[in-house]
Amino acid sequence: MCDQLRWDYLSCAGHPTLNTPNIDALAARGVRFTRAYVQSPVCGASRMSFYTGRYVQSHGAVWNGIPLKIGEMTIGDYLRPLGVRTALVGKTHMRADVEGMQRLGIDPNSIIGVRVQECGFDPYERDDGLHAVGPDGRYDPHEPRYNRYLNDMGYAGANPWHAWANAAAGEGNRLASGWAMRNAGKPARVAERDAETPYMTRRAMDFMREAADAPWCLHLSYIKPHWPYIAAPPYHAIYTARDVLPVVRSLDERVDPHPIYREFMDLKVSQTFARDEVRATVIPAYMGLIKQIDDQLGVLFDFMRERGLFENTMIVFTSDHGDYLGDHWLGEKDLFHDPSVKVPLIVYDPSLEADQTRGTVCEALVEAIDLVPTFLDAVGEDWRQQSHRLEGRSLLAWLRGKSPATWRHFAISEYNYAFLPVAQKLGIAPRDASLFMITDRRWKYIHAPGFRPLLYDLEADPCELRDLGAAPAYEEERRRLADALARWGLRSAQRTTRSEAAILAAHGKSERRGILIGVWEEEELPGELWSEYLGKDEPR
Amino acid sequence: MCDQLRWDYLSCAGHPTLNTPNIDALAARGVRFTRAYVQSPVCGASRMSFYTGRYVQSHGAVWNGIPLKIGEMTIGDYLRPLGVRTALVGKTHMRADVEGMQRLGIDPNSIIGVRVQECGFDPYERDDGLHAVGPDGRYDPHEPRYNRYLNDMGYAGANPWHAWANAAAGEGNRLASGWAMRNAGKPARVAERDAETPYMTRRAMDFMREAADAPWCLHLSYIKPHWPYIAAPPYHAIYTARDVLPVVRSLDERVDPHPIYREFMDLKVSQTFARDEVRATVIPAYMGLIKQIDDQLGVLFDFMRERGLFENTMIVFTSDHGDYLGDHWLGEKDLFHDPSVKVPLIVYDPSLEADQTRGTVCEALVEAIDLVPTFLDAVGEDWRQQSHRLEGRSLLAWLRGKSPATWRHFAISEYNYAFLPVAQKLGIAPRDASLFMITDRRWKYIHAPGFRPLLYDLEADPCELRDLGAAPAYEEERRRLADALARWGLRSAQRTTRSEAAILAAHGKSERRGILIGVWEEEELPGELWSEYLGKDEPR
Repeated sequence: MCDQLRWDYLSCAGHPTLNTPNIDALAARGVRFTRAYVQSPVCGASRMSFYTGRYVQSHGAVWNGIPLKIGEMTIGDYLRPLGVRTALVGKTHMRADVEGMQRLGIDPNSIIGVRVQECGFDPYERDDGLHAVGPDGRYDPHEPRYNRYLNDMGYAGANPWHAWANAAAGEGNRLASGWAMRNAGKPARVAERDAETPYMTRRAMDFMREAADAPWCLHLSYIKPHWPYIAAPPYHAIYTARDVLPVVRSLDERVDPHPIYREFMDLKVSQTFARDEVRATVIPAYMGLIKQIDDQLGVLFDFMRERGLFENTMIVFTSDHGDYLGDHWLGEKDLFHDPSVKVPLIVYDPSLEADQTRGTVCEALVEAIDLVPTFLDAVGEDWRQQSHRLEGRSLLAWLRGKSPATWRHFAISEYNYAFLPVAQKLGIAPRDASLFMITDRRWKYIHAPGFRPLLYDLEADPCELRDLGAAPAYEEERRRLADALARWGLRSAQRTTRSEAAILAAHGKSERRGILIGVWEEEELPGELWSEYLGKDEPR
Repeated sequence: MCDQLRWDYLSCAGHPTLNTPNIDALAARGVRFTRAYVQSPVCGASRMSFYTGRYVQSHGAVWNGIPLKIGEMTIGDYLRPLGVRTALVGKTHMRADVEGMQRLGIDPNSIIGVRVQECGFDPYERDDGLHAVGPDGRYDPHEPRYNRYLNDMGYAGANPWHAWANAAAGEGNRLASGWAMRNAGKPARVAERDAETPYMTRRAMDFMREAADAPWCLHLSYIKPHWPYIAAPPYHAIYTARDVLPVVRSLDERVDPHPIYREFMDLKVSQTFARDEVRATVIPAYMGLIKQIDDQLGVLFDFMRERGLFENTMIVFTSDHGDYLGDHWLGEKDLFHDPSVKVPLIVYDPSLEADQTRGTVCEALVEAIDLVPTFLDAVGEDWRQQSHRLEGRSLLAWLRGKSPATWRHFAISEYNYAFLPVAQKLGIAPRDASLFMITDRRWKYIHAPGFRPLLYDLEADPCELRDLGAAPAYEEERRRLADALARWGLRSAQRTTRSEAAILAAHGKSERRGILIGVWEEEELPGELWSEYLGKDEPR
């Protein structure tokens, strides 16, 4: 998993100036999904959906820093009982429910406690990848092993992530902050091999060496190309302003926009990315960081090939959300245009049955929550038995050339804007600051409680430049999509303690344990329900 | 709390032949709520809403026997940290999430484990009150202390609950099963003082003696007037067929009914209760059991008065759902007519501020989930700080004569019919077998996914005899109520780990920990965010 990688910043996805041969080669051996949506276009919420297989409204971790409530089952809870070692190298953006753990007496230092705090993964190398520091201290209290590594390599100081790996070499090799985007074109102050992406790649190989032949699932989770947009040489200079695609936006988008969209356009990051010099400076660095990931995946894939791991290992390449990069007058992610909510998803399935689909694309509506069911399916487990918990569906049929008889008609994504100045400016309380996207391939409808909806026609307007949310001619489409979203909202998502099969199997059981309802006289029911269990005790 | 007590089977609620002077006296000292709805008209789901303060769709324990998932906070989790001992005498119908406890390493015999298994209560006297036995063994694996008590009193056998307390004395004092309703008019085989209601009342007094002056919350939870409809003498004979109210039903209800309603009318218990002799036999016993509760509450209130407890103790009288008793051609509960979904709710508030409302009725829409917030409010805790978990609202303002500035416009109740033969006969999977009721005082709308809705006009048709769910003239009302239900379905109910206040307080915090988004050059931001934390490390 990459972080903040747009779906379209790969050469196999059609990017004309970015070259990602190793990822393309994976796509040539696997299936590339062209309509893969994350459940929320922000790191934490999106990842909690990837790891739980559940929608954000179901798991409740609606934004970065909102703890995943104790009791939510995560990928390790599903895979570990099947004998699959489930480990993490890199980022999860998990915040543990410390209060819930205390309430239930779970020791955070126990094995269970450690896994609960890491979405069910064994943290082989936990590193959330944002080790910023400011007047109130460090953003992430966890000291990453990577900082010690950098110290060992000779990069001095308490937080070399900050001062070296994510800082640029300014004039006279003085530190130029990675947080100031005008420095994005400058080289990082670390050597290429000491940057985060190669480091994490080596840690992934360490894990694979250690894990040897026992079954495993590794979440290799790169922080890049997420900001700070600083790339180590030579990657800072591989791409230039000439490689930057034209911005996708229209002046019409600024004319009487939806109030929430307007507030997002008004955010500092959006205003910054609206400037040409910013895009011309930042996007080449962003592309360089992707190029570095591609090269490192080449290293990793060679390593795996040498060890025969391509014979028995499913490989999924994806991202937790995209990056507007100035499109639609926006920076960052957060809203639901494709640059933000759609992600790359390439799945390589080593099985023979997948040979017929290698190198193909699949246009089905798929969601991040589909991965946990896919993994269960891949190891031979009946994921449907978990459908009272898992809200996604296995992709295995698509990978093996068998179109499922039924498939979802809609994909859903959610976002809570309470954590940005947007909600305050609009006077909306956190609980009411929810947005819901529903798309059916042709239409994308965004429900904004308290406001009118937004609507895009993806066929007539694939760049999503015309919001039809207030256009009278589209009332019927809006009604249809609102009704579909309403049905989704009334789904059963919390009855996680009994499966469908268990409920069906329970029928008639209470009667055979003596609960006899609506009976007038004993003769109405078979004698076995009565005679043996009644009347045994003599009267006093 | 009573079990299966209809809202209208109290003399203070207008019942013309049933006399409940002690409950009436409580109403005369408190407020009687005339529109109190349970969150589901079935024991387990309803109680989990009472105890969690959350809708069924939120807590997920959709029916009897569906474990409340680990992590859901219950009444004890709210009250105990405030120094309030929170205890149980009687029934909860809780099924513990044993699998979840194992997954998180929670010892079921630890204090935390015991409380988790009892909805947060300390089980002073746990007794779910259904100790039936059949060819597959006992319905409830917990052996109740009550059975040992009965043995001590001389009632022989392994399960005197079954053979004595809930069996009738037939001819020659032979056992006549309490499960055969034709025996409902016969006396129980136990003496009155040994019946469940007086026993539990004494246990409640034991608790109050023990608890002494430290703050406490006691859930005294009677199993009666729930079936088996067997009353100890003299209560089996206080009422007769002459005291039974006319059945509330119409032949029109059987003409082309809603498919789900039709299947409920087709259930054995409904067919049985459709017979006049059944009602004439069962309802007097049902009324006798209520009369016994009223007498026992008289004993309890005297005890409390003597100890000065009326000075400082809030008393809530309610039920977990009602009983059709043949109305609408139905038996049991389960659907959403008032006899099933509306409950008695009387709240006595000892405070001086409540003096002005004593003996009044309140017609506001209230829900079972309002009790936990009310209790928090009563002990001086700001329940709104828990609004990210609690979905109910404190009733204290109503009790103290201060109409809240805003109040809910709708009450919601839910039911899953997968556990009855209804779903199988209609070919509906458990997850799709949900029903949702939404009422706004004037209208009651029932959403049945996969079917047309039901609609009742409570003003024109207070007995709910005319289903307008298919009537063209009411399309607009249905749309309005469906939209309100859809808004409810999209509420935020799972973000339980961060309060509204905590989210608002977090604004700007990440910036002061070095996360600087959308900055072009350092000069844009105050120096304190930069100078001290950047550039400290010298270049190599």
